[in-house]
Amino acid sequence: MRSSRLAVLILFLTSYLTAALAQTKTVAERLGYPRDAKLLIIHADDLAVAHSEDAASFAALDQHAVTSASIMVPCPWLTEVAAYAKAHPDADLGLHLTLTSEWETYRWGPVASRDAVPSLIDPSGNLWPDTEPAVAHLKPEEVERELRAQVERALTMGIHPTHLDSHMGVLFARPDLFAVYLKVAREYKLPFLAVRGTGAPKELIPLLSNADIVLDSVIMANPAVDAANWKTFYLNAIQNLKPGVTEIIVHLGHDDAELQAVTVHHPDYGAAWRQRDYDAMTSPEFRKALEENHVILIHWKDLNALLN
Amino acid sequence: MRSSRLAVLILFLTSYLTAALAQTKTVAERLGYPRDAKLLIIHADDLAVAHSEDAASFAALDQHAVTSASIMVPCPWLTEVAAYAKAHPDADLGLHLTLTSEWETYRWGPVASRDAVPSLIDPSGNLWPDTEPAVAHLKPEEVERELRAQVERALTMGIHPTHLDSHMGVLFARPDLFAVYLKVAREYKLPFLAVRGTGAPKELIPLLSNADIVLDSVIMANPAVDAANWKTFYLNAIQNLKPGVTEIIVHLGHDDAELQAVTVHHPDYGAAWRQRDYDAMTSPEFRKALEENHVILIHWKDLNALLN
Repeated sequence: MRSSRLAVLILFLTSYLTAALAQTKTVAERLGYPRDAKLLIIHADDLAVAHSEDAASFAALDQHAVTSASIMVPCPWLTEVAAYAKAHPDADLGLHLTLTSEWETYRWGPVASRDAVPSLIDPSGNLWPDTEPAVAHLKPEEVERELRAQVERALTMGIHPTHLDSHMGVLFARPDLFAVYLKVAREYKLPFLAVRGTGAPKELIPLLSNADIVLDSVIMANPAVDAANWKTFYLNAIQNLKPGVTEIIVHLGHDDAELQAVTVHHPDYGAAWRQRDYDAMTSPEFRKALEENHVILIHWKDLNALLN
Repeated sequence: MRSSRLAVLILFLTSYLTAALAQTKTVAERLGYPRDAKLLIIHADDLAVAHSEDAASFAALDQHAVTSASIMVPCPWLTEVAAYAKAHPDADLGLHLTLTSEWETYRWGPVASRDAVPSLIDPSGNLWPDTEPAVAHLKPEEVERELRAQVERALTMGIHPTHLDSHMGVLFARPDLFAVYLKVAREYKLPFLAVRGTGAPKELIPLLSNADIVLDSVIMANPAVDAANWKTFYLNAIQNLKPGVTEIIVHLGHDDAELQAVTVHHPDYGAAWRQRDYDAMTSPEFRKALEENHVILIHWKDLNALLN
């Protein structure tokens, strides 16, 4: 996920609690917790992009430093992630539905046949390099074809996704794309990342139904956070956590030669950024803050169980 | 290139010199050297597969430790290689035409639209994982479509290939595939890897014409070479080099986390193997052996110039 996605997600931040207005029970209550419980999903994005990201994310999942993660199916390391998923059937892995290929040195194309999804492809034959050109070109019927192809490819590879979300927020950027996202998620009976309430994009909210399970808040580091204050950013987030279901989205990786080359010329969401996220999530201070603030860690599969 | 390719290339090894029977002048003579000159191309395969392989190959090209290299166009790091090619217009880069995706954790698909080349694709949606299943399934008209797509993609990316060869020897494994290879190479006026004479596959030789420029010999390390004797293998090869045009094929990479993960469970052509190749090619002893044995280093672009 890169800065372009940030603009969209910023709109989602701080929104919480309006589920109570729409439904008798909050998601927290449906999960068996009190209405004022602070429930948290700690979620690693971008699995299958690079071995460095996979290795850091698997280590964090194994240590329960993150509770969930999502996989970019068109990416080269999918088989590595599928092997992990098979070896860890309890791992809470969703699909990070992917319509962009944003790095300079290292690219990927669609899962669907290129002829079937021409609006998804840039002049180099890969997915669009950023949210803006993607949003300018994508045809919803081709997006639907590609999203289905990504879900089906994951299933073929032995991955049983617990949830769906959207790489770089592309599917939150146009109501017709958001509608495709909801259609595919509902058909596969998968919960999906979305928030309702204050701050959520107004044009998307009417597309949500009361049967959809949505989060109350999403927290993510952004380029305004100083590298020296990285851990403090997350500690403050935990200190200030509101009741309801929050997701912290992190981007894990090791600051090594591979990831430095993948993210070259792009410090935002780059190799050092992902190492900082890994270090913060696996730190004893972060663990301690979760305990001290009575945060209850939950998984997407808990939300999934409410639907199935 | 992996062991399955070896069987095919073994047949090519040791063959030398019969160009003299077919043509008045040998390739050496056409290049302006005496008939008994020892001309050598030192060639790095597999660019664009992994950053580790790119970094080692670029370093070897920059040091003139290898004279030439070839690029796997369907692979994720193509853009990194294209940037190198643009920054180094004199670099002697060909295309390593690719019909397999052989690693366990890390895969790639075709350049052509999947619908247009179904015989090239395995059940996971990637190219076949080894030479044997590829050779059992490939339809020549689809192979031609894909090879043209690979050449055109390279041109679109600003790469001007000096030559063509075949990843894992797939295009040497059936006469109809070899015929497609020759057809595409001749149309683009590109020299291509092939040898004529003793040891060359009998069924392929009749497809070559006198106008084709072919090599006299190809040398490549193989799994029978002990790791401890790696450099000695190459030093002996130089000591015993025959007159004519020889190509030494190497597979360069750094023995790092990325390449260890790409080549996991496959020591042959694995990360340590590629590090040994890099170390041997960049060693002072190898450089000295070339000088002492009066080896003349040439490039594929020298052969290319004979055609254009």
